[in-house]
Amino acid sequence: MSELRKDPVSKRWVIFSPERAYRPNDYKVKKEKKEKEEDKYCPFCSGNEKKSGDEILAYPKTANREPNSPNWWIRVLENKYPALTPQQNLEKKGVGIYDRMNGLGRHEIIVETEDHKRCISDLTNIEVEKIIWAYRDRYIDISQEKEIKHILIFKNYGERAGASLEHSHSQLIATPVVPKRVETEIKGAKDYYKFRDRCVYCDILSQEQLDKERIIEENEEFVAFNFFAGKVPYETWIVPKKHSAFFSTITKKQIGSLAKILKNVITRIKRALGDVDYNMVVHTSPINIHENTEDVFHWHLEIMPKLTRIAGFEWGTGFYINPVLPEDAAKTLREIKLDE
Amino acid sequence: MSELRKDPVSKRWVIFSPERAYRPNDYKVKKEKKEKEEDKYCPFCSGNEKKSGDEILAYPKTANREPNSPNWWIRVLENKYPALTPQQNLEKKGVGIYDRMNGLGRHEIIVETEDHKRCISDLTNIEVEKIIWAYRDRYIDISQEKEIKHILIFKNYGERAGASLEHSHSQLIATPVVPKRVETEIKGAKDYYKFRDRCVYCDILSQEQLDKERIIEENEEFVAFNFFAGKVPYETWIVPKKHSAFFSTITKKQIGSLAKILKNVITRIKRALGDVDYNMVVHTSPINIHENTEDVFHWHLEIMPKLTRIAGFEWGTGFYINPVLPEDAAKTLREIKLDE
Repeated sequence: MSELRKDPVSKRWVIFSPERAYRPNDYKVKKEKKEKEEDKYCPFCSGNEKKSGDEILAYPKTANREPNSPNWWIRVLENKYPALTPQQNLEKKGVGIYDRMNGLGRHEIIVETEDHKRCISDLTNIEVEKIIWAYRDRYIDISQEKEIKHILIFKNYGERAGASLEHSHSQLIATPVVPKRVETEIKGAKDYYKFRDRCVYCDILSQEQLDKERIIEENEEFVAFNFFAGKVPYETWIVPKKHSAFFSTITKKQIGSLAKILKNVITRIKRALGDVDYNMVVHTSPINIHENTEDVFHWHLEIMPKLTRIAGFEWGTGFYINPVLPEDAAKTLREIKLDE
Repeated sequence: MSELRKDPVSKRWVIFSPERAYRPNDYKVKKEKKEKEEDKYCPFCSGNEKKSGDEILAYPKTANREPNSPNWWIRVLENKYPALTPQQNLEKKGVGIYDRMNGLGRHEIIVETEDHKRCISDLTNIEVEKIIWAYRDRYIDISQEKEIKHILIFKNYGERAGASLEHSHSQLIATPVVPKRVETEIKGAKDYYKFRDRCVYCDILSQEQLDKERIIEENEEFVAFNFFAGKVPYETWIVPKKHSAFFSTITKKQIGSLAKILKNVITRIKRALGDVDYNMVVHTSPINIHENTEDVFHWHLEIMPKLTRIAGFEWGTGFYINPVLPEDAAKTLREIKLDE
């Protein structure tokens, strides 16, 4: 069983999950170059549905599809090695000067395609839309549980980004506490709002549209740009033009726009940098908390490619050195030719 | 020329340093297994002193040694690809809603041995003491500059930890701003102090000495333990028993004790986990700031091994999942047999 422990200095909660030490690992025997292996058993592949556990949600391709059988666009599963699990009650206790609580929450996998060999840049716009619909559906469903304070939706692409299986998938972790990184963002956005009476992300958008040099692509609903103070080379933000603190407010029209710009951005990154590993994270407001975050926060996506060894040092030291100016990154990505 | 840019939300400063994209890389062509290569040119090896740039400081082995020649215990050099450099003035300016400043600071390399093939666990206690003396000497020297607000001393061991050269070395980065991670620690320690009127690290030490189960080793001046809420498996803290906010206050006696416990801890980690990559960071108070941190902060060392793929995910998402309980890690490390 997992438990949460709090760092009494930074106030960061860490999930201790001994089960996760025994996860499978597609990547273990492979070297630098990743090659998709067709023959190997993959729990996410079409045909293996029975073995991968009951689906929480699926978008079937045909009306008469049986649950846990082939013919689906999207399948959502409980993680076999969950960091957090649904539990009766949230139990908090102190141990000397330390705080801990039981591992209440959710840890789900969103399998993005039946096909082992396709990743986001290979999918059609409609298929990418379905991934975002699944994010939204799960988010709205889980946010009904009052003990859940935050829902983290993210994608680890490749071993360096932390993925243990290569079949294209995203993850969702619902937590009974607000992660430190999210708390820092909310606090920063709130400080800015107090000072200027405006959303900091709305102001960032205006600034980017004025400067233009960091913008990669823009469509009706979203702007994609390399962030002015990005922690890593090619750190890319995709921000909705319409202010909202909560990802759950995403509309059908926005989903269409987001699918297009996301697929394009991933394709540009892949063509510019090769098949680079990356993390993609949906940044959205905490939920079921006492504070009102609606005016101050602004949901968005952040994509962080894992280039070379750069990530290790900063992660360990807490200090970021970025060798690529976002203006140069944006120019490179903007000039990539996309297929018509 | 490098520049610093501030994230308007998190208020984190990031160093943009285009020169660092062109660093050499010992590790580029190698795969998983690291093997020390003797024949290859290494700028830190004895005999190559003339080519590696003028030494800022050296501890000679013989009294009549010429500067920039062989026969040294320790050499301190300016980083050839510096993230920050000494400059006339600190120039801050706003660009729209964003803030930036020029890259004033220091970026130095502490070469820890003449011998390419030896790492900390291979050195004698006296040799490890000399590394810590070099940290101290450079720290005290640089802290005289009033524009420097923090001095980060750290060691990246191995490619996964961000090292680009394998010859054993540490680094020092002096910054004109307080790094976000340090600011968070100071803030947390201050909050605790306000509440309890005691140093949080002193209380952590008492708690660890009471619980005993996370302690790896203890000597006259220091305690080494696996932190209760460690972000990564085997995260190890080495904390001085005597309260002080500033690493610069380290005494001769403390240096002797620290060298012993540090060498032992690294040896234990290596014997338990193999030749694992790691980051080691000296956590110390900011300097030349208006606030008084003496009572609230407590300098110490943190060692973070880079095991498997775990680091990538948390780094990207801002959420930490640790599959190894610190009690189990400490038991493993405690039981490692050391040479007499």
